[in-house]
Amino acid sequence: MTRIGIIGGTGYTGGELARILCTHPDVEIAAMTSRQNAGSRVQDVHTYLRGYVDLEFTERISDTKDLDLVFVATPHGVAMKEVPALLEQGIKAIDLSGDYRLHDHEVYQKWYGHEHTDLDNLAKAKYGLPEFFRDDLKGADLVANPGCYATSIILACGPLLKAGVVDEDIVVDAKSGTSGAGMVPTDRTHHSTCGETIIPYSVGKHRHTPEIEMAVDRFAGSSTKVTFVPQLLPIVRGILSSCYFDLTEDLSQEEVDAIYEKQYGNERFVHHVQEPSIRAVVASNHAQTASKVIGSKVVSFGVLDNLVKGASGQAVQCMNLMLGLDEAAGLNIPGLGV
Amino acid sequence: MTRIGIIGGTGYTGGELARILCTHPDVEIAAMTSRQNAGSRVQDVHTYLRGYVDLEFTERISDTKDLDLVFVATPHGVAMKEVPALLEQGIKAIDLSGDYRLHDHEVYQKWYGHEHTDLDNLAKAKYGLPEFFRDDLKGADLVANPGCYATSIILACGPLLKAGVVDEDIVVDAKSGTSGAGMVPTDRTHHSTCGETIIPYSVGKHRHTPEIEMAVDRFAGSSTKVTFVPQLLPIVRGILSSCYFDLTEDLSQEEVDAIYEKQYGNERFVHHVQEPSIRAVVASNHAQTASKVIGSKVVSFGVLDNLVKGASGQAVQCMNLMLGLDEAAGLNIPGLGV
Amino acid sequence: MTRIGIIGGTGYTGGELARILCTHPDVEIAAMTSRQNAGSRVQDVHTYLRGYVDLEFTERISDTKDLDLVFVATPHGVAMKEVPALLEQGIKAIDLSGDYRLHDHEVYQKWYGHEHTDLDNLAKAKYGLPEFFRDDLKGADLVANPGCYATSIILACGPLLKAGVVDEDIVVDAKSGTSGAGMVPTDRTHHSTCGETIIPYSVGKHRHTPEIEMAVDRFAGSSTKVTFVPQLLPIVRGILSSCYFDLTEDLSQEEVDAIYEKQYGNERFVHHVQEPSIRAVVASNHAQTASKVIGSKVVSFGVLDNLVKGASGQAVQCMNLMLGLDEAAGLNIPGLGV
Amino acid sequence: MTRIGIIGGTGYTGGELARILCTHPDVEIAAMTSRQNAGSRVQDVHTYLRGYVDLEFTERISDTKDLDLVFVATPHGVAMKEVPALLEQGIKAIDLSGDYRLHDHEVYQKWYGHEHTDLDNLAKAKYGLPEFFRDDLKGADLVANPGCYATSIILACGPLLKAGVVDEDIVVDAKSGTSGAGMVPTDRTHHSTCGETIIPYSVGKHRHTPEIEMAVDRFAGSSTKVTFVPQLLPIVRGILSSCYFDLTEDLSQEEVDAIYEKQYGNERFVHHVQEPSIRAVVASNHAQTASKVIGSKVVSFGVLDNLVKGASGQAVQCMNLMLGLDEAAGLNIPGLGV
Repeated sequence: MTRIGIIGGTGYTGGELARILCTHPDVEIAAMTSRQNAGSRVQDVHTYLRGYVDLEFTERISDTKDLDLVFVATPHGVAMKEVPALLEQGIKAIDLSGDYRLHDHEVYQKWYGHEHTDLDNLAKAKYGLPEFFRDDLKGADLVANPGCYATSIILACGPLLKAGVVDEDIVVDAKSGTSGAGMVPTDRTHHSTCGETIIPYSVGKHRHTPEIEMAVDRFAGSSTKVTFVPQLLPIVRGILSSCYFDLTEDLSQEEVDAIYEKQYGNERFVHHVQEPSIRAVVASNHAQTASKVIGSKVVSFGVLDNLVKGASGQAVQCMNLMLGLDEAAGLNIPGLGV
Repeated sequence: MTRIGIIGGTGYTGGELARILCTHPDVEIAAMTSRQNAGSRVQDVHTYLRGYVDLEFTERISDTKDLDLVFVATPHGVAMKEVPALLEQGIKAIDLSGDYRLHDHEVYQKWYGHEHTDLDNLAKAKYGLPEFFRDDLKGADLVANPGCYATSIILACGPLLKAGVVDEDIVVDAKSGTSGAGMVPTDRTHHSTCGETIIPYSVGKHRHTPEIEMAVDRFAGSSTKVTFVPQLLPIVRGILSSCYFDLTEDLSQEEVDAIYEKQYGNERFVHHVQEPSIRAVVASNHAQTASKVIGSKVVSFGVLDNLVKGASGQAVQCMNLMLGLDEAAGLNIPGLGV
Repeated sequence: MTRIGIIGGTGYTGGELARILCTHPDVEIAAMTSRQNAGSRVQDVHTYLRGYVDLEFTERISDTKDLDLVFVATPHGVAMKEVPALLEQGIKAIDLSGDYRLHDHEVYQKWYGHEHTDLDNLAKAKYGLPEFFRDDLKGADLVANPGCYATSIILACGPLLKAGVVDEDIVVDAKSGTSGAGMVPTDRTHHSTCGETIIPYSVGKHRHTPEIEMAVDRFAGSSTKVTFVPQLLPIVRGILSSCYFDLTEDLSQEEVDAIYEKQYGNERFVHHVQEPSIRAVVASNHAQTASKVIGSKVVSFGVLDNLVKGASGQAVQCMNLMLGLDEAAGLNIPGLGV
Repeated sequence: MTRIGIIGGTGYTGGELARILCTHPDVEIAAMTSRQNAGSRVQDVHTYLRGYVDLEFTERISDTKDLDLVFVATPHGVAMKEVPALLEQGIKAIDLSGDYRLHDHEVYQKWYGHEHTDLDNLAKAKYGLPEFFRDDLKGADLVANPGCYATSIILACGPLLKAGVVDEDIVVDAKSGTSGAGMVPTDRTHHSTCGETIIPYSVGKHRHTPEIEMAVDRFAGSSTKVTFVPQLLPIVRGILSSCYFDLTEDLSQEEVDAIYEKQYGNERFVHHVQEPSIRAVVASNHAQTASKVIGSKVVSFGVLDNLVKGASGQAVQCMNLMLGLDEAAGLNIPGLGV
């Protein structure tokens, strides 16, 4: 069995990694760290893991020997301190934070507000979106797992940009459930604030903006400009990103759908559908795209569960590729539907 | 006291009219019709009106004498059968459905799927958005009350279009609570379907599209093109419309805000704010706008309670203008905030 | 105009007081205090009050002269420091916290964990539930406004206990919206925690237990024992308390309903109905009760908006009685219904 | 591979059965019927099953040969028409409706309003609650799958009743998500009606009352009386049942917990915890119980996902026992936690 560690096991993405990995056929969870819960049993903190994870939280990942791969599920700024030591010991790493997503460290500094301290590995990190960069990920040592918004948006926008049929000036109106904001209570995620409304926030200033532009430019071969407006939904899990394009050529609905089918027809986890549905994918690693042509414009939707395909599920998908396992191992489960 | 009637008193907008009018200082509710509840006491059907409305539902509005003004709160297609008789008797009318909103009967037929049978009054009806067409409404006999989406969008877009500082090709990503769909249960408004998700629907085909374009063209003096995507939110009351423009000249945030302040600075019910909030306006006739400049684009938000400023509250505002009353009479109450 | 002050104007009950009082015909808000927002305009902090409250938050209530009555809307432990000075200056006071609700200071210390430091006024404070203690409140100088749970439960239980037809050993299963927990974010009120579930908390240990027992004993003339289990609902406003009794005599449904009708038939704000509905009372000072006989038991429901009849609305109702105004002044507005 | 059929594949429990069975290691879904969708592909109707179920809906179950076991997931009254033919052909059956739950056909007629037409099989049907009746289910031919409320309540009440430490007169205050009401839109499950409230319904009249009493009497050996009040929660999946008992002997918190630990300590799917959490079990076959002693009373909570442990998951657990498979096969997945 491949031995896996999770740094940051108390948070939502850390707990979700454990939830997925505990039934994975080829790996075992050998270590989970937590500063606040070190010494406690994982299943006492996360009662949903009772009967599935028999482990105590440790203070540091180095307390555990013989790990093969470690997930870093911490706020940004932490991974770049942990990753160098892991790689030096020959332990593969997947960072779920933003630390290794932006290859240009100046862009990182501008959007995250502090310097990047691991430039070597920043240059080597692979961007963990299998549907577009699968070959990069096979056998990789360090993967930067994409942001939840970024995943939904790249999946929705990628096919049209790659096909070169739309203008590169894109409007993205995105909506996310509250779990995307993490486990720390804030004024905005207080139920009385957000529970019966939808709240625009970080308008034009969200850190997924440069991530989307950088990722998309790699396969679209150009300079995409994204106007990105995130909005907080009163649901726990789920993202709907609505992406608006100007068509640069006259395309029918069927032609647009064919572009998506060509891209995703053989994918296990991404399906192009007529009616996109968060409920169809929630609690699973699946995502859906859908497109509607409206005159000379097209709107493309991307939906996913922000904690699974938008975070921990996609990280496990990357892990499978890094370790040479079946890409879908541990992830073969449909969304809830209802 | 001015005597008021409501045709369609069982539905959400009819009940909401009664809720507002029952504490209005200058009018009395003299009649409410309901096919299904004729003969029942209003306060037994709408228990929230107990102690406020002492009346029985009647089958037809003509069962009541001496009405001064009648609200028609029925599905489209009904008002154009009721309104001619009302006007002939000298009774003023406000239609909350779509029947009198589109001045061009061919556009009506295209979007509503049936012929318009009251072309004379269609030509005379005033569009009931006081903040832009106040003078038309003073003393008017027939008012077409705007749609809920349309109101939020026109309020958000109007100032920039009127100022001529944006391109007329607009993207509108709108989100509405479920009460906007009315009281008849459907698959989409079934709680298990819509309660923990957001659902795009009628993409590019919603009937408020021509309404918005027609209204905006009147004061913007040109030909606006709206790409309108409505989405169903898991809340009961409230709309957030996010409207995306290309600036045609270089404007600062302050200049954009100044355009809105100039438009709404003296308005009682519409306020331009920094952080738009459905909760700040819910249960009131207030609406908010907010704008953010993002590079060469600007996103403008419009929020309101779809049953009040988006329907019955605005209808009462129009009524006050038609009857020469204080425009804010019966509507002077703040939103809930929490 | 009677001049009113609010200590604790930033919190939910303080803001709600302002929302209600700003349209009250007989009083004016002369002062609102806030430590964190002192110097800011009220309408900039509470944007829903824009156009309604033209005032700056002050640090202390003593910064304002000539107040007639002050609401204390702070966490428990604060009011007993503020109230003595107010009363000495001849300013009437209404405390919305728990400080003056429990007449026995030892019971207070046991449930609140600290000593009571204003025993004199504790003995004089009137319990602000007009439907049961109206005469006490007329002209009173100090009123302890009841808790939100307590109000819903006393309204539901009072008539049967007063009539002496039920056993005094009562089970109360209560459910509250999140605004009852106040504005400070916590793990439990974090949307991802509470947004799609119902959470029992403080089981058998909630401070409203002694309050309910003490209030009920006053008119039931005996020793009621309440088993009180509160549960957090994923809604913002609203309480449903389900109260279970053993009938001590054989009563029909009609006889039970008659007991409630006798109690509440002439009340402005409490109605006995067949189907209790939070939506029928939300955003209003109304409450509803309903009862079902099931064999030798009866379940009685109490519903209200925890911020209005459960807090600030009831406080205004008390104020009206204290000042000799019409009891319903400023509160004559129906619930939302939808 | 064991070949499985599902009668009623369009509804929530039918779809959920497919969702669970499609990844079950030992069985294959060979048939799904649907009157309204006959001829359509399952994955086009239930898009969450895309890539998991490759099948067309058929009109009748008899259109498919060589089935080993059939789930009947239809409204009550249908199964008793389908089951006899299945059993005659040697096909095992699990009924998810109420048709075979009440062994006394007169009780059935009283609560369901029509005669039972399959008395022979009614007498033979086993009640499918493995944690209490496991031995009955091994190798059984016909199983009546328990109701969702009933499961949560029996799990919460069973240990104390079996231990004989509580009075048999029980109050059950139960709360369910909307998916428990099925897929057909109604006034009560309309989002605007139920989305921001909690609604008591069928008070004292819900059909799970006799089911609970009958099941509990079998192992408690006496005559339990349940006062059952169901309430509709604004969530999609999940039940919390709060059950109130009078202790007949003086028990400490530890002694009560020990009774539950003794009952469930070795169970795979039911865990006794300190803080019951719907989120900990949602989307899984797990249930939780928790208990608090309050004076001479005890409140016990039961939580589960009404579509999984409350319906289709439990049915699969029963299937595993009927077929001699590992009881947990296909069900080994933790709840979502967040």
